Amino acid sequence: MAAAQSPKDAVCAAVDWGTSSLRIWLLGPDGAVLGERRSREGMQVAAETGFAAILDGHLEALGADPALPAIVCGMAGARQGWVEAPYAETPASPGDLATGAILVEGLSREVRILPGVAQKAGGRPDVMRGEETIVLGLAAESDAIVCLPGTHSKWVSVEGGRITGFSTFMTGEVFALLAGHSILRHAVDSGLDVLSERDAFASGVEASLKAPDLTLNRLFALRAAGLLGGAGAAETTARLSGLVIGLEMAGARRLHPGSERILLASSGTMLDLYSAALGVAGFAFEAADADAAVRRGLLAAARQAFSL
Amino acid sequence: MAAAQSPKDAVCAAVDWGTSSLRIWLLGPDGAVLGERRSREGMQVAAETGFAAILDGHLEALGADPALPAIVCGMAGARQGWVEAPYAETPASPGDLATGAILVEGLSREVRILPGVAQKAGGRPDVMRGEETIVLGLAAESDAIVCLPGTHSKWVSVEGGRITGFSTFMTGEVFALLAGHSILRHAVDSGLDVLSERDAFASGVEASLKAPDLTLNRLFALRAAGLLGGAGAAETTARLSGLVIGLEMAGARRLHPGSERILLASSGTMLDLYSAALGVAGFAFEAADADAAVRRGLLAAARQAFSL
Repeated sequence: MAAAQSPKDAVCAAVDWGTSSLRIWLLGPDGAVLGERRSREGMQVAAETGFAAILDGHLEALGADPALPAIVCGMAGARQGWVEAPYAETPASPGDLATGAILVEGLSREVRILPGVAQKAGGRPDVMRGEETIVLGLAAESDAIVCLPGTHSKWVSVEGGRITGFSTFMTGEVFALLAGHSILRHAVDSGLDVLSERDAFASGVEASLKAPDLTLNRLFALRAAGLLGGAGAAETTARLSGLVIGLEMAGARRLHPGSERILLASSGTMLDLYSAALGVAGFAFEAADADAAVRRGLLAAARQAFSL
Repeated sequence: MAAAQSPKDAVCAAVDWGTSSLRIWLLGPDGAVLGERRSREGMQVAAETGFAAILDGHLEALGADPALPAIVCGMAGARQGWVEAPYAETPASPGDLATGAILVEGLSREVRILPGVAQKAGGRPDVMRGEETIVLGLAAESDAIVCLPGTHSKWVSVEGGRITGFSTFMTGEVFALLAGHSILRHAVDSGLDVLSERDAFASGVEASLKAPDLTLNRLFALRAAGLLGGAGAAETTARLSGLVIGLEMAGARRLHPGSERILLASSGTMLDLYSAALGVAGFAFEAADADAAVRRGLLAAARQAFSL
């Protein structure tokens, strides 16, 4: 057996710096997690208070060596982030990402920020920042379709370990707008447990798969049903969630009509909702651990970028 | 020639009291407009400051007889309005509306509020308040499909002068949410003239007609195109408007696949946008004057309700 490892054995810090959250791991040479921090100091907060100080503070708290290099993915590399890491273009390999990593100048430690990926060809412009690292951690050297649910859900095609194309759906944001800011806010409660009303959720997914063209009508019908003394808030919220996620499924079924291997990278409630929706849409899928995947993707990039 | 008529010749006041606006006309026995007032004192304002005082103030300013009866349609009859006028149910005739009009008690003049219409059958719950009066003013005793664009667009089926069914689409509200409150607000400007970019608008309508299932993806693509240095704000705004109105058209085409006579009841920019969108969707239509129609509908109801 290997001896237990301490933070001083870490070969790099792996950082996933999103819009509204920050996750940092100390990784050993074999990828073992030797320390972890999570905070709400996402890109939006750090742009105000300073990225370097936040990162150094967390690494010091973890007992990391002051010279430990850090590899970063996510919105820290956006134009409004720490230092812009210009997009790699599809098709993008793990090597493209590692060689595109931007050095942050003027720090005591070596920090490199990985680029996002842009799709410019084919009349379907799209961008991602952070998800590419999860995807390459999940599907290095293989073929897969990776589904990453969220505010801006992504469906990513991987061929031979390279990201060949992807599609972002505004699913989570549209649900939040409708539930919180539209006339439907009187009929729904996004704090409720959608999965307590599985039938209503599934009926929404089915309705959108069957007739996505009726979406704007079905949304108003939720309000009308409330006025006419119909469904309660939990049922209406679940139906709304099903309609919106079902609309994503309808699009994904058009884009990925085959029976490819779908990897669902998610956790918690979203994992449950998307598992149910993928099933209704007839997709064969397996759930994958997105956290472990982003760490694998970051470590692979660090090995190349820092010649570990 | 008939002698010129004065406000004292009016047989009733015709009132369209919506959520955010109020329109009042004095109508002669033949429907001639003998006076008109428009204000922003919609139901939301009037619920705070008092409906009766607002109506009396406008009628006095118009020189109307203090005993002139008033017929009212719209949100003044909602639960949160002046006095609730319970919905008539489909199929609903002009007579059903007139006999369902609710007398407002305790006023010096006779005021009656017309009911809205509810659709409870067929698993497609829907409601309207105000549009029914426009529709019956447009299509009394005839067959038609009436399209009423707006925050909540409505497509209303009329057979033999009765409202037999209808479908509300959350089109205008969804556009406003996306343009003003989503990540797309960085890429669009809803104050711009959408019709200055007719091709972009039409391309959005076509895209939604062709693949409504890709709506959530196409919305994000507007943002991605902006980040990748593509379209300008006017073009993006027009494309967004086209995508959302096109999604309504896709639904309407499913619900009304035949070549029925479509009456488009609208004015101004919305008339232009919907004329363009209906054309792209292959609908044959004729434009109709919604203001004249609501006056006709109100006068017909007043004749019956007040035995004029």
